[in-house]
Amino acid sequence: MSNKQRHSPNLPGLLADVRARKPLVHQITNYVTANDCANAVLALGGSPVMADDPDEVCEVVAPASALVLNLGTLNSRTIQSMLLAGHEANRRGIPVILDPVGAGATSLRTATARQLAAALRPAVVRGNLSEIMALAGLPARTRGVDSDDDQTEAQQVARQLAARLSSVVAVTGAQDVVSDGQETWLVSNGHPWLARITGSGCMLSALIGACCGVTHDHLSAALAGVVAMGLAGEQAAAAAAAFGLGSFRVALLDRLSQLSPQRLQEGAKIDVA
Amino acid sequence: MSNKQRHSPNLPGLLADVRARKPLVHQITNYVTANDCANAVLALGGSPVMADDPDEVCEVVAPASALVLNLGTLNSRTIQSMLLAGHEANRRGIPVILDPVGAGATSLRTATARQLAAALRPAVVRGNLSEIMALAGLPARTRGVDSDDDQTEAQQVARQLAARLSSVVAVTGAQDVVSDGQETWLVSNGHPWLARITGSGCMLSALIGACCGVTHDHLSAALAGVVAMGLAGEQAAAAAAAFGLGSFRVALLDRLSQLSPQRLQEGAKIDVA
Amino acid sequence: MSNKQRHSPNLPGLLADVRARKPLVHQITNYVTANDCANAVLALGGSPVMADDPDEVCEVVAPASALVLNLGTLNSRTIQSMLLAGHEANRRGIPVILDPVGAGATSLRTATARQLAAALRPAVVRGNLSEIMALAGLPARTRGVDSDDDQTEAQQVARQLAARLSSVVAVTGAQDVVSDGQETWLVSNGHPWLARITGSGCMLSALIGACCGVTHDHLSAALAGVVAMGLAGEQAAAAAAAFGLGSFRVALLDRLSQLSPQRLQEGAKIDVA
Repeated sequence: MSNKQRHSPNLPGLLADVRARKPLVHQITNYVTANDCANAVLALGGSPVMADDPDEVCEVVAPASALVLNLGTLNSRTIQSMLLAGHEANRRGIPVILDPVGAGATSLRTATARQLAAALRPAVVRGNLSEIMALAGLPARTRGVDSDDDQTEAQQVARQLAARLSSVVAVTGAQDVVSDGQETWLVSNGHPWLARITGSGCMLSALIGACCGVTHDHLSAALAGVVAMGLAGEQAAAAAAAFGLGSFRVALLDRLSQLSPQRLQEGAKIDVA
Repeated sequence: MSNKQRHSPNLPGLLADVRARKPLVHQITNYVTANDCANAVLALGGSPVMADDPDEVCEVVAPASALVLNLGTLNSRTIQSMLLAGHEANRRGIPVILDPVGAGATSLRTATARQLAAALRPAVVRGNLSEIMALAGLPARTRGVDSDDDQTEAQQVARQLAARLSSVVAVTGAQDVVSDGQETWLVSNGHPWLARITGSGCMLSALIGACCGVTHDHLSAALAGVVAMGLAGEQAAAAAAAFGLGSFRVALLDRLSQLSPQRLQEGAKIDVA
Repeated sequence: MSNKQRHSPNLPGLLADVRARKPLVHQITNYVTANDCANAVLALGGSPVMADDPDEVCEVVAPASALVLNLGTLNSRTIQSMLLAGHEANRRGIPVILDPVGAGATSLRTATARQLAAALRPAVVRGNLSEIMALAGLPARTRGVDSDDDQTEAQQVARQLAARLSSVVAVTGAQDVVSDGQETWLVSNGHPWLARITGSGCMLSALIGACCGVTHDHLSAALAGVVAMGLAGEQAAAAAAAFGLGSFRVALLDRLSQLSPQRLQEGAKIDVA
């Protein structure tokens, strides 16, 4: 680790806190992966609650420890709910995690992602490179000859967007980048099968919500979520290699639920950029 | 069993009837656990149908054997559908099962749960202690020093609410309570892991719907559902102990689908209060 | 095979193309099985995207290789989205797959299925016999003494509706029928457990979407989807026989993800009617 490091993230302590304190995580999310997101939060030790009606989201978020906003199957009613719940969370100092699913793919998504990011002071924004580029207002990348270009671009955009939003930004991909604008971490945990099931990104954002629910150090919280998901993915792929993607999904929840602080510590492949 | 018992619930006969008659169970439910609820009903032997548009719910419920109303991710459109379908079910003598998810947590949920309970003559109401207390209009309990307080409170509120609504009330928790206001049963089946996955409560309400679809004895139907879910949970936890929550979810459906009337009879841990 | 055969469907080539080209499949579908449908498409090698808001569906479908419209939990908002996305797909020559879930069960579903079929020139329509009969405007069948009657009726309605719509029609059941109006194929793959989980029909329609995304030969695409699902079902039932329906669902995704072109070729049980 380089001397740029000012952080010494206590990932095992964070996981232990999630398991001990069972943070309530309010999620306004999509109907494709809502079940996965609820079970992922439960597996890590948190307590999920899903509710998206404008008439109740402010009451739902009030006692929560974190709010996760996921644009997966957004519509005008849920966008309104995200804004209402997000403002309430801001007022109460509850961390907001923004997952700009599909930003860049449609103008509705890009505009909504930018509106939420600008209006809500998110604690953490998590997306893939395309989504984060679109949210940041950068032109859609042209895929480079090799993944080194992506990696450089991911670090730059994470750092810049984090600084601009005063937020933590996590760009997930083959290698994950987590930055608060000052300090940038790289995570090499994970497995290609995570991209071959639906919901691994959504579940990760939900896990980051659970971690943000027990600490004000949102950089460490985002790192803990990214490492936990990646590590569970590695272990699940090893367990399911002979079977396939169905068994991989099952093993992923298994490993999240059985992940110990010590295993998280030992298995983390992180470094300062 | 005490001499207060007037019922001799034939749980294995009920399960055999579900498997033989495949009752159609219309569910207006949440998008987080809808898949689990459909698969649970299928595993027990019933036939699920999910539909929530006001323009069609009366036609959907008309040929059904039971209607399950679950407030999990309610909104103004689905509340309207629940009322329409519920009134149609009442007119046709189709049993209505009410799952007041989150009653007490927001005023929308509390008000909706009370409105549905008052307007629709539910055959069975199933919730956890907080939800049933809120529905009954009792002040939120303060958690007692030990679970004996909860247990006493659960029996009281189940009995009182059942008498007031002329309905069966099931309060599920570490020990489950099922009452029709006259007679109260305690169920000791189950496993703590059922509270560590999403949807076990919703699935149980759906199973009770399937059981209500084959008998007018709604007390026995509620008991059969509670015992079946608890027993499958016990067996699934044993099968998945070495793996984790993902495998537990899979084994739960496995065990529901393989549950025989004889195993239900042998495994039931029930007693009159 | 009879001399009526003009087709010699290259099923293994089609599967290899799906795996190589990863077609983007836009699905406007129900919230009960959306997760299953996304994972099924991923398992076969495609790339699913779910989005149902009228404000964005035209942009979502524009870069897609296929559009799947599933009426499972339709409402007025999603019906509007299906029409918008469908017209855009038609304009762009993107194949539309229509799954008329529940046609015949309510007037809203029957009317919507007919409206979509008439307005959108679907490449493939897939449903069970009741749904396809209702869509075709034929009186609800009275269940025959044995399944031979169903089989005859399925072939007739598939052929007639396909000719009328200039589309491929797949009627799935104990034996599956796939026709383009000229040529009719029978598929004997499959397992009764496929009818005991939710979503096997929806997943099949999604798989057909993935296959239509890599060929203009929609008859072969529908056949490939039907055979792949049936074969995976057979293999999954064998793997899960000792466990139950939960394990069957997991094994189904496993087998879809591990299905090789060669296994598809060897396992296909197809014949010309």
